[in-house]
Amino acid sequence: MAEKMGVFEIPKECKAGVVVDEGPDFRVEVRMVPVPEIKPNEVLIKLNATGICHSDLHFMQNDWALPKMSALGTQCAGHEGAGIIVKVGSEVKNLKVGMRAGYKPIWDTCGACSLCRGAYECHCPKAVLTGLMVDGSYKQYVTSPERYTTLIPDGVSDYIAGPVMCSASTIYTSIKDSKVEPGDWAVFPGGGGGVGMQGIQLAKAMGLRPIAIDTGAEKEKLCKDLGAEHFIDFKQVKSVADEVVRLCDGIGAHAVFVTAVQSYPDSLSYLGGRIGGKVMCIGLPPAGTLHLDVDPNQLCFKKQGVQGTLVSNMSDVDKTLDFAARGLLKPIYTVYGVSRFNEAVQKLRRGEVAGRAVVDFNLE
Amino acid sequence: MAEKMGVFEIPKECKAGVVVDEGPDFRVEVRMVPVPEIKPNEVLIKLNATGICHSDLHFMQNDWALPKMSALGTQCAGHEGAGIIVKVGSEVKNLKVGMRAGYKPIWDTCGACSLCRGAYECHCPKAVLTGLMVDGSYKQYVTSPERYTTLIPDGVSDYIAGPVMCSASTIYTSIKDSKVEPGDWAVFPGGGGGVGMQGIQLAKAMGLRPIAIDTGAEKEKLCKDLGAEHFIDFKQVKSVADEVVRLCDGIGAHAVFVTAVQSYPDSLSYLGGRIGGKVMCIGLPPAGTLHLDVDPNQLCFKKQGVQGTLVSNMSDVDKTLDFAARGLLKPIYTVYGVSRFNEAVQKLRRGEVAGRAVVDFNLE
Amino acid sequence: MAEKMGVFEIPKECKAGVVVDEGPDFRVEVRMVPVPEIKPNEVLIKLNATGICHSDLHFMQNDWALPKMSALGTQCAGHEGAGIIVKVGSEVKNLKVGMRAGYKPIWDTCGACSLCRGAYECHCPKAVLTGLMVDGSYKQYVTSPERYTTLIPDGVSDYIAGPVMCSASTIYTSIKDSKVEPGDWAVFPGGGGGVGMQGIQLAKAMGLRPIAIDTGAEKEKLCKDLGAEHFIDFKQVKSVADEVVRLCDGIGAHAVFVTAVQSYPDSLSYLGGRIGGKVMCIGLPPAGTLHLDVDPNQLCFKKQGVQGTLVSNMSDVDKTLDFAARGLLKPIYTVYGVSRFNEAVQKLRRGEVAGRAVVDFNLE
Amino acid sequence: MAEKMGVFEIPKECKAGVVVDEGPDFRVEVRMVPVPEIKPNEVLIKLNATGICHSDLHFMQNDWALPKMSALGTQCAGHEGAGIIVKVGSEVKNLKVGMRAGYKPIWDTCGACSLCRGAYECHCPKAVLTGLMVDGSYKQYVTSPERYTTLIPDGVSDYIAGPVMCSASTIYTSIKDSKVEPGDWAVFPGGGGGVGMQGIQLAKAMGLRPIAIDTGAEKEKLCKDLGAEHFIDFKQVKSVADEVVRLCDGIGAHAVFVTAVQSYPDSLSYLGGRIGGKVMCIGLPPAGTLHLDVDPNQLCFKKQGVQGTLVSNMSDVDKTLDFAARGLLKPIYTVYGVSRFNEAVQKLRRGEVAGRAVVDFNLE
Repeated sequence: MAEKMGVFEIPKECKAGVVVDEGPDFRVEVRMVPVPEIKPNEVLIKLNATGICHSDLHFMQNDWALPKMSALGTQCAGHEGAGIIVKVGSEVKNLKVGMRAGYKPIWDTCGACSLCRGAYECHCPKAVLTGLMVDGSYKQYVTSPERYTTLIPDGVSDYIAGPVMCSASTIYTSIKDSKVEPGDWAVFPGGGGGVGMQGIQLAKAMGLRPIAIDTGAEKEKLCKDLGAEHFIDFKQVKSVADEVVRLCDGIGAHAVFVTAVQSYPDSLSYLGGRIGGKVMCIGLPPAGTLHLDVDPNQLCFKKQGVQGTLVSNMSDVDKTLDFAARGLLKPIYTVYGVSRFNEAVQKLRRGEVAGRAVVDFNLE
Repeated sequence: MAEKMGVFEIPKECKAGVVVDEGPDFRVEVRMVPVPEIKPNEVLIKLNATGICHSDLHFMQNDWALPKMSALGTQCAGHEGAGIIVKVGSEVKNLKVGMRAGYKPIWDTCGACSLCRGAYECHCPKAVLTGLMVDGSYKQYVTSPERYTTLIPDGVSDYIAGPVMCSASTIYTSIKDSKVEPGDWAVFPGGGGGVGMQGIQLAKAMGLRPIAIDTGAEKEKLCKDLGAEHFIDFKQVKSVADEVVRLCDGIGAHAVFVTAVQSYPDSLSYLGGRIGGKVMCIGLPPAGTLHLDVDPNQLCFKKQGVQGTLVSNMSDVDKTLDFAARGLLKPIYTVYGVSRFNEAVQKLRRGEVAGRAVVDFNLE
Repeated sequence: MAEKMGVFEIPKECKAGVVVDEGPDFRVEVRMVPVPEIKPNEVLIKLNATGICHSDLHFMQNDWALPKMSALGTQCAGHEGAGIIVKVGSEVKNLKVGMRAGYKPIWDTCGACSLCRGAYECHCPKAVLTGLMVDGSYKQYVTSPERYTTLIPDGVSDYIAGPVMCSASTIYTSIKDSKVEPGDWAVFPGGGGGVGMQGIQLAKAMGLRPIAIDTGAEKEKLCKDLGAEHFIDFKQVKSVADEVVRLCDGIGAHAVFVTAVQSYPDSLSYLGGRIGGKVMCIGLPPAGTLHLDVDPNQLCFKKQGVQGTLVSNMSDVDKTLDFAARGLLKPIYTVYGVSRFNEAVQKLRRGEVAGRAVVDFNLE
Repeated sequence: MAEKMGVFEIPKECKAGVVVDEGPDFRVEVRMVPVPEIKPNEVLIKLNATGICHSDLHFMQNDWALPKMSALGTQCAGHEGAGIIVKVGSEVKNLKVGMRAGYKPIWDTCGACSLCRGAYECHCPKAVLTGLMVDGSYKQYVTSPERYTTLIPDGVSDYIAGPVMCSASTIYTSIKDSKVEPGDWAVFPGGGGGVGMQGIQLAKAMGLRPIAIDTGAEKEKLCKDLGAEHFIDFKQVKSVADEVVRLCDGIGAHAVFVTAVQSYPDSLSYLGGRIGGKVMCIGLPPAGTLHLDVDPNQLCFKKQGVQGTLVSNMSDVDKTLDFAARGLLKPIYTVYGVSRFNEAVQKLRRGEVAGRAVVDFNLE
């Protein structure tokens, strides 16, 4: 009732999925931690849900050649949060208590460099990475600087909004960057995974013709229901590349969106003879493990390319939320109560999660 | 005199640089060969000069995993010709005797496929490759289909026009494709070579800031005279990549144009931390020899890319000629008489040619 | 049977809708006319159907400040034809008897100018206008140069393919040129007309959010069935502009596609305060009748623009046919037998045709 | 001395060019006014110089259908300031005393809307207009929010930097928005004026071929020295449009950049038959005075367009400063001491200023 009136009682402590034994054998332990204080230009967000992303695993495993979370004073991973603003700092101008807000991979940027000024702020060299340099969305109450807070529009549930903060918006940016046009073939290796499924839906909504590569009848049904025109079961075909080429007019894919990192080595072959075809890199393998062996002659003869996307700028996050608000993005998620935090994380790690895993702070 | 009046006496035979012992030990022998007949929709071009391109060597060495010239009935390599139309077929509409014309890497295309219709005709799967599938510009008289003939504008000498047909126009297309903007840093490994020097001049003319990488005081002077803002002597610096990054605002190149194939492995490092930086592939190494080892994490974290360019479409060849007509393209060439054909080719093969080598059919 | 085997008996004479009394009181009279001869590089197309386009009326009324049809030796208007190739010239390479082919607003272009080479060939200064400079698609048998003939893919009926040759492809090109992005608002004044309805469907297929402006419950149903998110009945609202702005996020349209020429004067107001909004001109009013009164301050303050599209290049015609082949383009047409040629034309002239009018040469 | 050490003594009062009798008969009176206080997130800039822009006249004349300066509590117009930061607020992070800074047409924006997030922040509906809604650069000491402050790089004098804040950067943005390519013709009606001259230089630096339209031998020399390939004296030719078309390959301009508002009515005719030609609107006439009468048929037949540019976003201002730092932008200015403030303003109003007028606060 008080919440409806825009008045929130803020507790001293809150639930958090804290990383323990950071490194290859890490686990997530649910603990009570202090609710943080906000600065004058910040808001306090009470998260209802957080998605679990592969990047979280890499931060907790510390296998991306980055500093350790603990060395930076960070206890909680996570950057796909959705909740409600429960307190605003004295200098906050545009945000109000009661507004719904998200929690993204980038917590804040400098706002002053050429990247920040040119809407490439997600690549700002001073960007603060959520869940690594500040506590992430595995914590129920988090702070967010007003200037870098994303609002969640009506009609987008927290379970959908969370993953939009990172995976869905990233793949939206990647599709835009690929310069494909309506009617073009967009291939998603690992299309049955959490990110791929969002890619399929967004590609469909943007007029593309999505093809999913994954395995199993369940994933096939899922991918086709979400808009994939074709599904290639990599266990059932002799050559995935040949199959992609066959389906794509006998020529090859216009763009391949690699979210499943094990597809990197093969991805260029999916382009076949498509002039101007592009492999878009999205998934981030452990440092030094997976490379693309690029033959410059292939790129030249076919005018092809390889390009990377990290995360979205604020503008693209908002545009992706707009697709969600129009009902075009229905992430298929498995919801876990907060007591099952570690279970959810370990399942994702073992590749046992269908779609996106979401932890709900309001469920036990 | 007769030539000035647009009347040309056409001999039965003409000079040609014929490939002998096609393969690793090939040589070019000057012989008299029959002047070809034209079809109703073709013109006969009397070439005054031909550039010599690395691709010619690959065709004659047969190291690109393509069919042999001899198997295709071709005696002469070459695709950088410049001359004059001396005869037109009965169906020719727009071309006239006396017009100056070039001879390009692509001799003709199908004109009917989606690539041909979309101004990507140079990638037409039925494209006829000059100097491989039909006799090339090492022959004084050649035929050309009206629809795919390029006219040479006033004020562009044959020595300049020849190399524009292939190398200069290709690098123009590559610069356009790279999407760099005026004021951006354009790096040319092998900038002192024939293609690189044309790249430096075109980049300058397009408002970019060229940096050449090569070695020696002579090449340094040449590159700077042509418009390079900086010259990196790769024999004088510890790390070329560090030097590129230092010169490019301490960040890295906006685009690297790789014409010197031995630079492929290092090229991505020249991008440094430049968000959106691109390696543009132009040079074609022997099949299977040089690859780029691409770390998807680098591409993602920095939004970087790698992309290829083969040759130009007709439209870009014309635009490059326009730069030449405005005096902005001054290829530095060494001219050889026709009797020194093999010498010129072997020198290029040994890397001893400064700038572009041109053979003049009117000189002994 | 013979037709199935690719053998066609070609008569001496064929049906044609000939213009009589060219000018404000013109009418179309069905007559028998000679079947034309083809040149070596041409094909003979037997048309099954022709769409009727507003441009036809302008040619026959001669109100576009162009030469008269009769002065150019032309008897038949029309440029939205669909049929089958029944004969090929001796020099024809890629086309065969039995292939399905269309007949477009541009009959041929020079193939040699910079526009032709850059895929802007539909603006070639030597373009031959169908139905004005050569006989149009109101004639059952027509000739077409191989190089400028469009093939019709399987699964696209003649009734759909005809209008794609002109109206549908033009609006596809206009949407592309407008640079709108998936999720943007695309407004179609006259959305219930033949061109507008194709625009609505293509916009939908390209991920846009179409809004139709027209009048009447029937047109409302039609537009919404085809994919319009909203329908504004201009007779039912106080201010169309206010309504457009209200529906488009309270800001204004991202792009307005003007096919109904009487909307030109108001069209800029539909952009409201949309930064970067664009009015795309498609409809061609009688020369000197309708102008846009453009306030440069509005354009500057809102970064808005006005831009024109005439017809499509060959590449875009093919791409539009691809949408049709995928079932995404269902022109709503009224079919007339050939004896009712004049009736169909006059009805369109009086604005009494719902959707697109098509004349079937095989129906009496 | 103290200044060199980064310590500045800040007086209580400072010089200002205050508007008196706002409206058609306004004048600028030099008075002493209080030096403003800064907020925690602001800096105090001591301006050395201010450009005088036509927009200032419109604000002081109040003829743009905007609120009056006085009604908004503003005394000083001006938005082309250049100076040094002499004090920083307690929350300022990236800026320091002693840094050189500019003062732009937009004083601040909301930072939270989709325009702000997408690098279109100069069109933010909450944008605060300098010299209208807050005191402008006709005042020696001004405040600036850290987030919207532009730093001036080494090597750019205050006299050059001032006009970059508005006119030069605006025309840079307009050139970019026009999508012209290196080698294209860029026409500048009023090229001998302050804005036009900056346009000519930037166009040249971006690889375009500038043509100036103005009158008099002095302006001709100036324009050609700055890089114009041609100068059209509108008093010496029968038809400016014919002359533009003749010079531009006999076809027409690729783009016309209208800074001189009296050229609007004729501007479309300068495009001639150039397919894709664009009129770019920059100059802002008094509300309701000058319109473009646009014939949609011309736009359609020639694929032409009209588009507006207001001012630049922060990113483009920085990029324009980069051109200046490279010595490519040498505004020709007349410098006035502060006691001649009104004289300078009235001269501009009467069209008697060659190049850009600059007032130096350090000169009497």
